[in-house]
Amino acid sequence: MLKISDTLSEKKREFKPIEDGIVKIYVCGPTVYDLTHVGHARTYIAFDIIVRYLKYKGYRVKYVVNITDVEDKIIKKARELGISPFEVARMYEEDFFRVVEELNLLRADVYPRVTEHIKDIISVVGRLIDLGYAYVIDGDVYFRVRKFKDYGKLSKQKFEYMLAGARIEVDKRKEDPRDFALWKASKKDEPSWPSPWGPGRPGWHIECTVMALKHLGEQIDIHGGGADLIFPHHENEIAQSEAYTGKRPFSRFWLHTGLLTIGREKMSKSLYNIVPVVEFLKKHSADVLRFMVAQAHYRSQIDFSYEKIEELERALSRIYGTLERLRVTSMLRRVEEYKKDLEEEFLSKLKTMKKEFMDAMDDDFNTPGALSKIFEFIDYYERIVEKKEDSYIRSEHLRLAYYTMVELLREILGFKLEYEKLSRTTVQLLGILLEVREKLREKKMWSLSDAIRAELRKIGIEVRDTGYGPVWFYRPRLKAQR
Amino acid sequence: MLKISDTLSEKKREFKPIEDGIVKIYVCGPTVYDLTHVGHARTYIAFDIIVRYLKYKGYRVKYVVNITDVEDKIIKKARELGISPFEVARMYEEDFFRVVEELNLLRADVYPRVTEHIKDIISVVGRLIDLGYAYVIDGDVYFRVRKFKDYGKLSKQKFEYMLAGARIEVDKRKEDPRDFALWKASKKDEPSWPSPWGPGRPGWHIECTVMALKHLGEQIDIHGGGADLIFPHHENEIAQSEAYTGKRPFSRFWLHTGLLTIGREKMSKSLYNIVPVVEFLKKHSADVLRFMVAQAHYRSQIDFSYEKIEELERALSRIYGTLERLRVTSMLRRVEEYKKDLEEEFLSKLKTMKKEFMDAMDDDFNTPGALSKIFEFIDYYERIVEKKEDSYIRSEHLRLAYYTMVELLREILGFKLEYEKLSRTTVQLLGILLEVREKLREKKMWSLSDAIRAELRKIGIEVRDTGYGPVWFYRPRLKAQR
Repeated sequence: MLKISDTLSEKKREFKPIEDGIVKIYVCGPTVYDLTHVGHARTYIAFDIIVRYLKYKGYRVKYVVNITDVEDKIIKKARELGISPFEVARMYEEDFFRVVEELNLLRADVYPRVTEHIKDIISVVGRLIDLGYAYVIDGDVYFRVRKFKDYGKLSKQKFEYMLAGARIEVDKRKEDPRDFALWKASKKDEPSWPSPWGPGRPGWHIECTVMALKHLGEQIDIHGGGADLIFPHHENEIAQSEAYTGKRPFSRFWLHTGLLTIGREKMSKSLYNIVPVVEFLKKHSADVLRFMVAQAHYRSQIDFSYEKIEELERALSRIYGTLERLRVTSMLRRVEEYKKDLEEEFLSKLKTMKKEFMDAMDDDFNTPGALSKIFEFIDYYERIVEKKEDSYIRSEHLRLAYYTMVELLREILGFKLEYEKLSRTTVQLLGILLEVREKLREKKMWSLSDAIRAELRKIGIEVRDTGYGPVWFYRPRLKAQR
Repeated sequence: MLKISDTLSEKKREFKPIEDGIVKIYVCGPTVYDLTHVGHARTYIAFDIIVRYLKYKGYRVKYVVNITDVEDKIIKKARELGISPFEVARMYEEDFFRVVEELNLLRADVYPRVTEHIKDIISVVGRLIDLGYAYVIDGDVYFRVRKFKDYGKLSKQKFEYMLAGARIEVDKRKEDPRDFALWKASKKDEPSWPSPWGPGRPGWHIECTVMALKHLGEQIDIHGGGADLIFPHHENEIAQSEAYTGKRPFSRFWLHTGLLTIGREKMSKSLYNIVPVVEFLKKHSADVLRFMVAQAHYRSQIDFSYEKIEELERALSRIYGTLERLRVTSMLRRVEEYKKDLEEEFLSKLKTMKKEFMDAMDDDFNTPGALSKIFEFIDYYERIVEKKEDSYIRSEHLRLAYYTMVELLREILGFKLEYEKLSRTTVQLLGILLEVREKLREKKMWSLSDAIRAELRKIGIEVRDTGYGPVWFYRPRLKAQR
């Protein structure tokens, strides 16, 4: 049974979608005014895993991610660069989709753009005015917060705090300082569209209400985004949507990903420490970024550092090496001798790994818990290998372990699993080399035998001398280690 | 300038197609009554290389291969198996297309089936009767050989010999013993179609005339087939086609592949020594079969034996190993030191190889000559490697050599080039192993250093000790050696 924690109710509750078998999920996407950075990637990867797991469980997932392609920051960037806001948007939207591709993110069903929904936005704003939830001043339209009595229910903010949160927008003309813009009268040299209130453009919050309505319906199952969007963005989205439809809740579950900090600071443009994904991928892999995300619960904060990335690369290499060892061992085996007890134990450990992995995922998408189950199985498998007992497990069972791990890692967690495969020739060469090394050890030629081990380590082969003889483990080099 | 030898004129002549830039080629395809054997494969592969070369030279090639799906042998086989002739045809047609796929044969533009051209055949036969080139007896239609005054021009057969060739068909009703059936009145339990001369089915020869006419036009550039088809099949085809159109020549060039013998006997069903392609491919590769074909001129006889196949596998492995060595060396190089003189020599040898390869192909598709140019380059390259001089050729030039060889071998000769690739780890392991072996040789530990060499040989690595130190050559194992 899947349980999900919800920011609104502050409870972990059993997940049941509105329509049987279908999950409607809306995740706030990019404002396309700069390169996608690893902070954004954290949110997208976290929701990618959530969507993958829901699909794995058999749900038909309707997945919408909006693209904010007209907004203050885009207009500002366009002025800086001396190009049009539309060119800015197109340029960074391309970067976003490159990131979607390179980070192996499942594509959403729709990526609605604000500029392609202006008519829908005007219609929703008009209706909010008709219902008394909005008012017009000099071509601007504001949401009347006082009329929506539950305002603040998501962020649980005190009235004073909300004022502080809204401080940038202080405007004497507004009825209440918390009131926020649904429609903004156009200033000079800004993109604008005609409306009943004069030429203008949408406020930031209204688009998500409109796109969720249009592409998913009046009520949805899951609404997601970064924790920094809880207030004011998601608070305002609830107010707009529930005021418009008269139905509540707008979303059954509100999921928020924790912040990504660098040296404990929130990664944002103003701190001059952003790491664009395209830059990150020049030296590191998409899998290690995903691993960093999956190693934390989606609601937890992650502190980003290159030391942590390197540490994660070593752990990731251990996963890859285990997969490769399972694959080639099952492929190269000739004799089909086996030990029944050992096979039973192996299959039972494998089954336990899968079950506990699923249990962890069912518990509010506990990816660190799920990953720990994979590592427990790797620990067990390496103990068997050290005793050279893996040669007493039949190929079909080694293959089953390989495919089970690949299923969990690729299908649910979304890893690309790209690494240098071991060839038959490599494994055979390794066999020759380890035999030669044993001969040297018999003759007490320690310096040469140690040199062999040191050279092997450099190329990603770890040799352990056990009571059962030398044993190799593959540790494929990742991009950064090249 | 491409020169092609022609069975009809018995001359090697410059090739010029009828229409500029377009080559119309018709090759006699299978009678689908049994598994495709290596004798058939020899013909198909030879013409595949010819078509590939014509395409490489920039011609648009219109390539037709017919499928004889109603014929005496099919009817006989159907009686033996107790199924319908159509089922027999369908079954062996499937085998034929599997062979096309597995032997990497370029697909023809059309594979016309006889049973789908009955109306066209009836119309051509009717016209031949109208023209006085054919006559009807009891529902059979015969071609009137005496009326076609050039009869025998292709096969240069003496009249008496032709009688012997036609001995099976001796029939007192015929005007001339050489006359052959265009249409056969149906016997009991035979497939038949209605016709102006009563129910019947086409004779074997007429289909090729009709299909060439329909799919390529009244005159074609190249007509191909096995040498066993020269008489009577192709002789009859010329008589029918030229009688029908009044135009000559029916085909500008007649190309015939030599026979494939096993222990010097023609491979045919009656000799009980056929080797079906599907059987051959269980133990050997498509590439080695193609290599056997390309090692002989298309007009030469080939004697098939497994000893020869094994010998060819060793030579093929040397080609593969050279490609892999070029590929990985160019990939793994770090330092870009180089020797100018050496590079110039290397590039000049490469250029010579390509030019002489093309010259050989231009000389009546002389594939053995073309292959010998590849081996001359391999000899040269191995001499460089033995002196460890390949490390003084820049990656881009090693890569150029790799891609040039791949172009000639894959694009023109049609090799699949499937073999175990060398990985970076393999090459690095090999480096460690050879260094250890050198240390052992310094300490005069001969038995261990010899054992290393012997073990390496078993897994497809040949080590040569040269004046410049030990050098490895890769000899990937082929299917048969597994």
